[in-house]
Amino acid sequence: MATAAIVIIGNEILSGKFVDENGPFLIRRLRELGCDLGRLVVIPDVPEVIAAEVRACSAAFDHVFTTGGVGPTHDDLTLPSIAAAFGVAVERHPALEAILRKRMGDACNDAALRMAEIPVGAELWWDGEVRYPLVTMKNVAIFPGVPALLRLKFEAVAHRFAGVPVRTERLWTERTEPEIAGALTEAASAWPSVAIGSYPRFELQPPKVLVTLEGRHEAELEACVAFVAAAIAPSA
Amino acid sequence: MATAAIVIIGNEILSGKFVDENGPFLIRRLRELGCDLGRLVVIPDVPEVIAAEVRACSAAFDHVFTTGGVGPTHDDLTLPSIAAAFGVAVERHPALEAILRKRMGDACNDAALRMAEIPVGAELWWDGEVRYPLVTMKNVAIFPGVPALLRLKFEAVAHRFAGVPVRTERLWTERTEPEIAGALTEAASAWPSVAIGSYPRFELQPPKVLVTLEGRHEAELEACVAFVAAAIAPSA
Repeated sequence: MATAAIVIIGNEILSGKFVDENGPFLIRRLRELGCDLGRLVVIPDVPEVIAAEVRACSAAFDHVFTTGGVGPTHDDLTLPSIAAAFGVAVERHPALEAILRKRMGDACNDAALRMAEIPVGAELWWDGEVRYPLVTMKNVAIFPGVPALLRLKFEAVAHRFAGVPVRTERLWTERTEPEIAGALTEAASAWPSVAIGSYPRFELQPPKVLVTLEGRHEAELEACVAFVAAAIAPSA
Repeated sequence: MATAAIVIIGNEILSGKFVDENGPFLIRRLRELGCDLGRLVVIPDVPEVIAAEVRACSAAFDHVFTTGGVGPTHDDLTLPSIAAAFGVAVERHPALEAILRKRMGDACNDAALRMAEIPVGAELWWDGEVRYPLVTMKNVAIFPGVPALLRLKFEAVAHRFAGVPVRTERLWTERTEPEIAGALTEAASAWPSVAIGSYPRFELQPPKVLVTLEGRHEAELEACVAFVAAAIAPSA
């Protein structure tokens, strides 16, 4: 199954000026699509940091989604940094320049045209009805940071990342984590295709533990659920 | 000024089963305390990934905060992974074992005692009125993933991370980002102690741009604000 990483680029998130909305949105959508998210990182608008993170994620995951830093101001450093991640320069792309000039007219100055300067070798994805294509570089899809724009652009290309969604089963128990730990370890070992999580909810009265079981192999998931359900039942 | 990184450990966040509350909380509190957050990363419950991330963050930042993976079940791998990050083993700590045995009585089994197995060389912080100390290893503070517990434990030790808070000024303009980009670049270059951010708000009518200016050098911040305010004013 395809794997993915999310790279949120923006001082404004790290400094708490804005609460990140794009990470939670992408986490939810990737889950629905059946694309396995392996990493989410929030980094500052620093070219070397962006380049290093994008290079590492591009090598380790099937898909990388970046958000932020693609506007016309001095703090928009994502496109040249992604170029640097792959050892290439940026060049002004004629199709993007044409869109900007048509949309902005006389207001299309040098700052605006920085938005048309993309890594050499980048591809444009024109999926859907978008006015402006999505810029991608190898396996890196480069999204804007403005949440409404990100959502619009993501939905236009989401079909490219669709796989088989994971099925999740949830079991609750009033037994404590130490009491059920042995059974969970045994189940995790017996059904390696099933991911088992254990989450204590001390705030409930009485306290409970939520056990989640997830997988794409139906028969193994069901066998594992049956085993765990019996093992954590009150009478066990 | 002290720098920090946050390492959120948990499949449950990456898979969207839970929305992370600890990252936003820590971001806000570090900002209030005046500790500069440089990185936030969400990683899965995989020992090698945890060890690599903690090792890298420990070397690059003054403080590292991990959340999650410190319970008694098979998916709680943070303590041995942090030990591995520093090339040491875990050992059962007598003080932690005593607390667990006293609190849990006969229910204190081997699974529960895993919570007392901490990296060789780890320190316990007993600040405040906590029943259970905070485990720290070098510059890494190891927090639980349960949000209510994390908050309690963080507030007990927050005084250790206090510095000089950053001052933030906000300016709004109806001019577009391309129009103001030149002035912002000039200001960023003239006052390097001031961090300048530019955030378009296309959803407003009329659309506006929020410009933020932040710094700890009062005189430079004020001079920079005055320059930018004049440069982005409607009549400029």
